[in-house]
Amino acid sequence: MTERAPLGVAVIGTGRMGADHVRRIHEVTSGARVAAVVDIDAERAKAVAARVDGCTAHTDPAAAMAAADVDAVLIASPGPAHEATLLAAFEHDLPVLCEKPLTPDAASALRVLEAEQRLGHRRVQVGFMRRYDPEYAKLKALLTTGQLGRPLMLHNRHRNVASPPFFTSSMLISDSVAHEADATRWLLGHEITAVTVLRPTPSVSAPDALQDPQFVVFETDGGALSDVEIFVNCGFGYQVQAEVVCERGTARIGDGHALVTNMAGRWGGTIAQDWTERFEAAYDQEIQAWVDATRRGEVTGPSTWDGYAAAVVCEAGVRALENGGRVEVGLVERPALYA
Amino acid sequence: MTERAPLGVAVIGTGRMGADHVRRIHEVTSGARVAAVVDIDAERAKAVAARVDGCTAHTDPAAAMAAADVDAVLIASPGPAHEATLLAAFEHDLPVLCEKPLTPDAASALRVLEAEQRLGHRRVQVGFMRRYDPEYAKLKALLTTGQLGRPLMLHNRHRNVASPPFFTSSMLISDSVAHEADATRWLLGHEITAVTVLRPTPSVSAPDALQDPQFVVFETDGGALSDVEIFVNCGFGYQVQAEVVCERGTARIGDGHALVTNMAGRWGGTIAQDWTERFEAAYDQEIQAWVDATRRGEVTGPSTWDGYAAAVVCEAGVRALENGGRVEVGLVERPALYA
Amino acid sequence: MTERAPLGVAVIGTGRMGADHVRRIHEVTSGARVAAVVDIDAERAKAVAARVDGCTAHTDPAAAMAAADVDAVLIASPGPAHEATLLAAFEHDLPVLCEKPLTPDAASALRVLEAEQRLGHRRVQVGFMRRYDPEYAKLKALLTTGQLGRPLMLHNRHRNVASPPFFTSSMLISDSVAHEADATRWLLGHEITAVTVLRPTPSVSAPDALQDPQFVVFETDGGALSDVEIFVNCGFGYQVQAEVVCERGTARIGDGHALVTNMAGRWGGTIAQDWTERFEAAYDQEIQAWVDATRRGEVTGPSTWDGYAAAVVCEAGVRALENGGRVEVGLVERPALYA
Amino acid sequence: MTERAPLGVAVIGTGRMGADHVRRIHEVTSGARVAAVVDIDAERAKAVAARVDGCTAHTDPAAAMAAADVDAVLIASPGPAHEATLLAAFEHDLPVLCEKPLTPDAASALRVLEAEQRLGHRRVQVGFMRRYDPEYAKLKALLTTGQLGRPLMLHNRHRNVASPPFFTSSMLISDSVAHEADATRWLLGHEITAVTVLRPTPSVSAPDALQDPQFVVFETDGGALSDVEIFVNCGFGYQVQAEVVCERGTARIGDGHALVTNMAGRWGGTIAQDWTERFEAAYDQEIQAWVDATRRGEVTGPSTWDGYAAAVVCEAGVRALENGGRVEVGLVERPALYA
Repeated sequence: MTERAPLGVAVIGTGRMGADHVRRIHEVTSGARVAAVVDIDAERAKAVAARVDGCTAHTDPAAAMAAADVDAVLIASPGPAHEATLLAAFEHDLPVLCEKPLTPDAASALRVLEAEQRLGHRRVQVGFMRRYDPEYAKLKALLTTGQLGRPLMLHNRHRNVASPPFFTSSMLISDSVAHEADATRWLLGHEITAVTVLRPTPSVSAPDALQDPQFVVFETDGGALSDVEIFVNCGFGYQVQAEVVCERGTARIGDGHALVTNMAGRWGGTIAQDWTERFEAAYDQEIQAWVDATRRGEVTGPSTWDGYAAAVVCEAGVRALENGGRVEVGLVERPALYA
Repeated sequence: MTERAPLGVAVIGTGRMGADHVRRIHEVTSGARVAAVVDIDAERAKAVAARVDGCTAHTDPAAAMAAADVDAVLIASPGPAHEATLLAAFEHDLPVLCEKPLTPDAASALRVLEAEQRLGHRRVQVGFMRRYDPEYAKLKALLTTGQLGRPLMLHNRHRNVASPPFFTSSMLISDSVAHEADATRWLLGHEITAVTVLRPTPSVSAPDALQDPQFVVFETDGGALSDVEIFVNCGFGYQVQAEVVCERGTARIGDGHALVTNMAGRWGGTIAQDWTERFEAAYDQEIQAWVDATRRGEVTGPSTWDGYAAAVVCEAGVRALENGGRVEVGLVERPALYA
Repeated sequence: MTERAPLGVAVIGTGRMGADHVRRIHEVTSGARVAAVVDIDAERAKAVAARVDGCTAHTDPAAAMAAADVDAVLIASPGPAHEATLLAAFEHDLPVLCEKPLTPDAASALRVLEAEQRLGHRRVQVGFMRRYDPEYAKLKALLTTGQLGRPLMLHNRHRNVASPPFFTSSMLISDSVAHEADATRWLLGHEITAVTVLRPTPSVSAPDALQDPQFVVFETDGGALSDVEIFVNCGFGYQVQAEVVCERGTARIGDGHALVTNMAGRWGGTIAQDWTERFEAAYDQEIQAWVDATRRGEVTGPSTWDGYAAAVVCEAGVRALENGGRVEVGLVERPALYA
Repeated sequence: MTERAPLGVAVIGTGRMGADHVRRIHEVTSGARVAAVVDIDAERAKAVAARVDGCTAHTDPAAAMAAADVDAVLIASPGPAHEATLLAAFEHDLPVLCEKPLTPDAASALRVLEAEQRLGHRRVQVGFMRRYDPEYAKLKALLTTGQLGRPLMLHNRHRNVASPPFFTSSMLISDSVAHEADATRWLLGHEITAVTVLRPTPSVSAPDALQDPQFVVFETDGGALSDVEIFVNCGFGYQVQAEVVCERGTARIGDGHALVTNMAGRWGGTIAQDWTERFEAAYDQEIQAWVDATRRGEVTGPSTWDGYAAAVVCEAGVRALENGGRVEVGLVERPALYA
């Protein structure tokens, strides 16, 4: 592939997230085109494909991967379908951007990890898009300079306006806190070794039987602590904040103070109402970085190892939620491929 | 007077401001007592006096000043009554805290200035209480260190929720911007040499025929500019802000960010609704500083010269408002007493 | 005592805190005078007494309490001396403002609690001065309105530049987090039922063997959680922050944004370097409120029960620090006197 | 042109700005390619062209415009060369994105305006990229909702670390304040009718004979005022801020508070050091919007009229700077093409 040719991407899954990625690659991303879309719902696939010149519609991921103009795969289907699609992509030796979670549980994540090792080179970037958020990126860059000293604690806030009807107490961990599990590992450069989940009285705004909010404490092999307030029915907005406390100072992101008004007795600003507003730039940057690296023949960003580690941590977190107390996290030894 | 004895204060005028000062001296100020109150309305004077043990009520300031337990005078009567009361206090050689304005016009202010010079020593502190506001005090202290370099510009915002019914266009200058005239002189350490008043379209919320907002530009003999947005029907709150632009940096006060909330899609805080909330601490500090200095036998704070200069600047400002263009400010030579 | 007469206060202990209270009552507080000072170091007591007209010096608290012009007692001696002084004050039936801690351990605190019950009426206000800090007071007032709904979580940050040489790991709990124990109880209106203390890797800036920082989690009988980052060698400043997360919103204090500068590539402001700067107004308000209530014949503010509860919580916290895990907090039944 | 084909852009001028646009179109922009570059320095043109597959190098803009794969023109050459290039583009009837200024003076801008009218349809988008800055866009969107009421005043701050050696006093107006002239017209929806330039004492950091800072006041035909602090040797950072004061509230942008640190006695964050950091997203959005509109066959964004109006305002501003006092702004009648 010369650099000139745009990267032909097959987008697997055309639900809300997949359709948004199709739009993004078509209208925002430089150097890529949507070559194919795949959905088990053939009509939905066709409708999405029709928006893009030369894009074909499929119901089988393997068929799309076999197409001549498909150079790379973006997986945005439901989590349980990820493993099979990843293994198929490995057979075609195609680069993959896989939306989080890598797979829904630690056992399947380990199988993917082993399959990629057999392939012998990295093919997968996992969709932990916070690493591409301009604010998180600034925070990471500041930590990397070392001017604040070693990180000792990380305080995280993760708040949603309201949870969807199907949301369960364990999904607060596996779906939401999964982001903080990755952010903790990435910002601190430590693996998580234990999880404790505390259960304050649920909010009256939480649906019956939903344990919301929760307060999660991660311990790490570097000795730093990371605590997470997860509150998915906070009512007032979508808010993601992080403060790293280091030996010589602290750094905080997520205030979102771009536009400040005075009005009706109050100063301040609006809070984003969902993740598309808060993290739009992060998704744009993530896809562009993936396309750029892929065209250079490289694989960068969060790896299969990161997807596997998140799966193990979240499984431990769900056990900690259900049984109380502190649950240790056991990872396999880190393969050389992900050193 | 030994330091032990509280300072006996005669409060002249028992309207909103005077009554508040009576309460303050009685309940907040250390080392002072309200010995007498004066009001042309005898009943009002009596009602206020009744709240304080041993406080006498008068209708004539001179009678109060003659009382044995009166050591000092606080003038909170309407501006037109100030000159006579100040001259009476000079006759009794009593220390005075005179609420702003010193007098309502430059000619009468000059007479007071000359009378105090004949007395031969300072007796008057003028009530420019912003100099005692903790935020203004921090700003002044920072400028005094010199670490920002020389001040070049001062941007001021002065906003009220709504103006009282009797407010006229020229009162925006003489009543409101008078504070910024003093703050400009004090913060920059320059005299004001010219005033320009610009007239944006009045707000629909301003009463008929009121020129509100106005935009005032002061030039100074130190070469710095000071601009003032005065908007007395802004609707949303009482807000006083200042930013000094210096050769090596800027400094800003007035954001009022003590309590930050997230609620209903917005982050931010409340804005004070009137000056009692914004400047309560300033009034407390002003009176305490006056009492402390007086008990030490000293006169500190804004002087008669400061009151005179404000009167001249405001007169020029009103002419600039009425006639358009730039109006020069002419002060008499600064007497040695106020060097 | 007529309202006119100032309250005669005996200040017990003339170390840094006691001497500062003498200055405060002498120069800042309205309606009170320092009638006597007490210190086991007679010279120190005399030196402090000499600054105030008519103030006598003593080495024995009981002698001071017996003086005719002593109406009330302020205890600022070291914690181990508090119990005896409190019991002596009960014998003289004098109102007391007792600096925190009430006493250094739960057993002695309980004895004081029982003694005050035998007296039959409240005499003690404990010096949890954060309740008088303007920012905490605003936060409490906002919670009381109910507009944010029920509190679910409280996140606290408590940071000191550096710890004094004698500071031990358990003092992070008993000396520092004691403030957050009271703030949690007061803001939430709940009793603390269990404490967990987590131990991140100590900072390189912490003295050898000092476990600093620590991360403390309080559970409460109202179901809310309160977490505390305590970091007494953070290096950059003295910073006390709190964010309450409620069912309909959050509220945060402690940002300290009064003066904002642009300078040398950075915007922002200074951080207080110690508690006298951050909480000066709180101490002023606390003493004034105590004097005002005492002159009215009332006892308000944090009670002996609050001092006792803090002692029990801190003892549990120290056990949690030393032994790991979660430690339950056992209070005696709340006496009717403190209902 | 089908939507599928990328837009072939000829970039005229390969200095700092032009080379950056080549990089942007090549790596960031979706749906466009750099087909040709032009520079009077043939070697520089070749060096830049060599970075992009299939890009040709030219020294004559007309030659580039004649190339088969050139669909649109981006002018980033020095201002004096703009008129000829614009007229050449009109001859080829090619869409143009012309960096500001449209032309360096009002007379030449008027000639371009008349030429485009003869062409009969809009072809030009002028590079006032602030309209594409996410913060300015939010401010404009908020004003458009009308919830703040009518705008009455606009306060602008425009600060650079240091001016380049060739900068003259009049360039503070024509080069820097030109942005605020357009922002004022765009945000308020008014034409500027008069300009006053005030001259505070120059900063010691300003080169000899440079009048820096300056304070500019724009009057508008809608009755609103707009003031601009321009300070191109402020030393501390690149900072662009705007506050609109409306009838029911105010709105402010430019604080730049994304990352907040506590460190060494100070809280706060870094200030951008130049426009590439502050406005990188704005440039990306501007070029993408131009490419998208051009591929749809539309012309959007700031028009030749906007470029002409800015030229007239800046000429008046320079006269106001040089002669003192207020200078009126005379525009030709607005042609229907730009209604």
